[in-house]
Amino acid sequence: MNTKDIAAPAMDYARVFNQAIDRLHAEGRYRVFIDVLRNKGAYPNARCFAGHNGPKPITVWCSNDYLAMGQHPKVIAAMEEALHDVGAGSGGTRNIGGNTHYHIELEAELADLHGKEGALLFTSGYVSNEATLATLGKLMPGCIVYSDELNHASMIAGIRNAGCEKRVFRHNDLAHLEELLAADDPAAPKLIAFESVYSMDADIAPIAEICDLADQYNALTYLDEVHAVGMYGARGGGISERDGVADRINIIEGTLGKAFGVMGGYIAADQVIIDVIRSYAPGFIFTTSLSPVLVAGVLASVRHLKSSNVEREGQQAAAATLKALMADAGLPVLPSTTHIVPLMVGDPVKAKKISDVLLAEYGVYVQPINYPTVPRGTERLRFTPGPAHSEAMMRELVDALVEIWGRLELELRLAA
Amino acid sequence: MNTKDIAAPAMDYARVFNQAIDRLHAEGRYRVFIDVLRNKGAYPNARCFAGHNGPKPITVWCSNDYLAMGQHPKVIAAMEEALHDVGAGSGGTRNIGGNTHYHIELEAELADLHGKEGALLFTSGYVSNEATLATLGKLMPGCIVYSDELNHASMIAGIRNAGCEKRVFRHNDLAHLEELLAADDPAAPKLIAFESVYSMDADIAPIAEICDLADQYNALTYLDEVHAVGMYGARGGGISERDGVADRINIIEGTLGKAFGVMGGYIAADQVIIDVIRSYAPGFIFTTSLSPVLVAGVLASVRHLKSSNVEREGQQAAAATLKALMADAGLPVLPSTTHIVPLMVGDPVKAKKISDVLLAEYGVYVQPINYPTVPRGTERLRFTPGPAHSEAMMRELVDALVEIWGRLELELRLAA
Repeated sequence: MNTKDIAAPAMDYARVFNQAIDRLHAEGRYRVFIDVLRNKGAYPNARCFAGHNGPKPITVWCSNDYLAMGQHPKVIAAMEEALHDVGAGSGGTRNIGGNTHYHIELEAELADLHGKEGALLFTSGYVSNEATLATLGKLMPGCIVYSDELNHASMIAGIRNAGCEKRVFRHNDLAHLEELLAADDPAAPKLIAFESVYSMDADIAPIAEICDLADQYNALTYLDEVHAVGMYGARGGGISERDGVADRINIIEGTLGKAFGVMGGYIAADQVIIDVIRSYAPGFIFTTSLSPVLVAGVLASVRHLKSSNVEREGQQAAAATLKALMADAGLPVLPSTTHIVPLMVGDPVKAKKISDVLLAEYGVYVQPINYPTVPRGTERLRFTPGPAHSEAMMRELVDALVEIWGRLELELRLAA
Repeated sequence: MNTKDIAAPAMDYARVFNQAIDRLHAEGRYRVFIDVLRNKGAYPNARCFAGHNGPKPITVWCSNDYLAMGQHPKVIAAMEEALHDVGAGSGGTRNIGGNTHYHIELEAELADLHGKEGALLFTSGYVSNEATLATLGKLMPGCIVYSDELNHASMIAGIRNAGCEKRVFRHNDLAHLEELLAADDPAAPKLIAFESVYSMDADIAPIAEICDLADQYNALTYLDEVHAVGMYGARGGGISERDGVADRINIIEGTLGKAFGVMGGYIAADQVIIDVIRSYAPGFIFTTSLSPVLVAGVLASVRHLKSSNVEREGQQAAAATLKALMADAGLPVLPSTTHIVPLMVGDPVKAKKISDVLLAEYGVYVQPINYPTVPRGTERLRFTPGPAHSEAMMRELVDALVEIWGRLELELRLAA
């Protein structure tokens, strides 16, 4: 039975699915994936297969491999060595055949990075958030989770799947968070879940002040540092390291697929918390563990970024330059205090059009960001310059944007 | 604030977490991960780090890398080439920077494997089940899901997270499934979710008969083939290929981390279904895509197993031999019709003890399977002999088991 052949009077599955797709087209947010291969050793250069014109050179401006560690010789060498030592996959769950010595070493390295007793690897950052938050909520009957309104979809999924009470506080709004905490039963278990760097708005949470509230109201703290690990702090421990507050956070969550350049996710926390998540979270228990090849690469990446600041400094300098060039040209760059450069468009069709023109005419690859990744009406382009994006590349990019802004009759806000 | 320091009268978090761990110890099902590294090129040989005695040689009997494809020269070569061509990680979600040409090629290869219009990659089999089932349920208001009682935890999570009605039918029981289908509104959207090979009991679903019921009651069919892809059918398309019923299944789900030897998961289906899951499933949208290194390895593995039967035949022969040797020795091997060899123990403490003795005294690595992976009281050992396990290894294993069975005063059931 093919769904397209179904035409029963009772239930027409194909119609339901086609309508769901039609809604996306009508809103201008149907997503087209750009078909690319990066050129190792020449990042941010890549080749693009779109349009069937064969590989065409492009410059990548939207990768979360912020520091180009996915191309780093130490990472590549470590992965090659593991590949030849133990093979491709782990062959099983962590409990059944899939626990390799690499996994154990990396967990120790990540625990050390955050000054915690233990760490636990997951197959992705998404899964680490979903599995940990859902499991914590279930283990503490009556738990109330306080969640920043801009938290990532994976945190929202975890909190919802926990089945516990949820209070959403306005983004980075301490007064609202305190109001919500004060209104609840002092004896109820509480968890404050938030991010350090909010990737789409490029701003940073007041971590110390949130920890003060957690102390005052006896709440646990859960901090997503996926856009900050490797990027901030003297050893790449994230904003919590930079601000000297890592010891005040109960659970720090991070990714291995952005600044560390590979793939996977993790949490770091007290040993008993690691042990309960390890023992109770279905999303950890019932899944093949990360390939030892990936784990070996991450080990090299984390160790390198613990002692090297060159990549972090180069990336911050590139981001500052691009933000200044965009602002000087009157482009509506958001006031970012981080390494991310968001450019507001406010319309899904125009955001996609700008992206299409950049790729087709300028060889610039940057995806439009639309709903559900950001709220409707705040569609944007999101640039992630890295240490290897030169100032010449940035000037070409800004010139291209100014030309397209004019072509689409979008407003430039030039300083008086 | 460290959880161990918390001693507020209101809520003692450390106590709650410690109690959760204590419950596992009390039931004898606290899990200890064995620290191993496999030796590429010499599988099933591996080295074990447990007990801090340094690397010690062991034989792996519980890997889901059923065909040792994780060690196959074609797979290793493809991964090495991708590593040097494009680097470690994908650098982003499929929509934002992380869609590589490898991903597109593999999806086409997997669609072809199952005779479907399209396929979609996920970071794991767990995520593919959870994300697809949760999203299908949400897209069809009033949907009722009919779920086999032994379905995998990831399917159960997806169905629960869909928030729709669920009917659980007795394992592989067609009469019960029909009774449930007949009792519901004929106009309601319906989805029958089941597996082909049930990994822990090692039996196979009556796929054609379930499809007959789906036709009769106008239900969609969702088939988890994670333990069958690569293993059954002339090209490794699974039980649905072997039985000639793939075209009757709406959605086939598989893994890239078992017989294909690497990591990741996927679905194959009509293009419109692929498109709605691609467009609506948070577990697909909001996560860094599979590393292109893994994807390249899987491509080589899938292509190889489409044309080679040597691995499948070797594995089936090994499983048949081991089952016969165990039965001849009176060991309580379950009546398996598949490549998996489950040995019933029925007690978590004894299952763990047998596993511990095998590892410490015989260099045999097989994990005890306990709750929640199997129901309490059905704890077991689960052997997965591969094409590289020799008959001599099997005879040594069976002799060891018989000795331990005697030592623990467990019953041997010798034929009259």
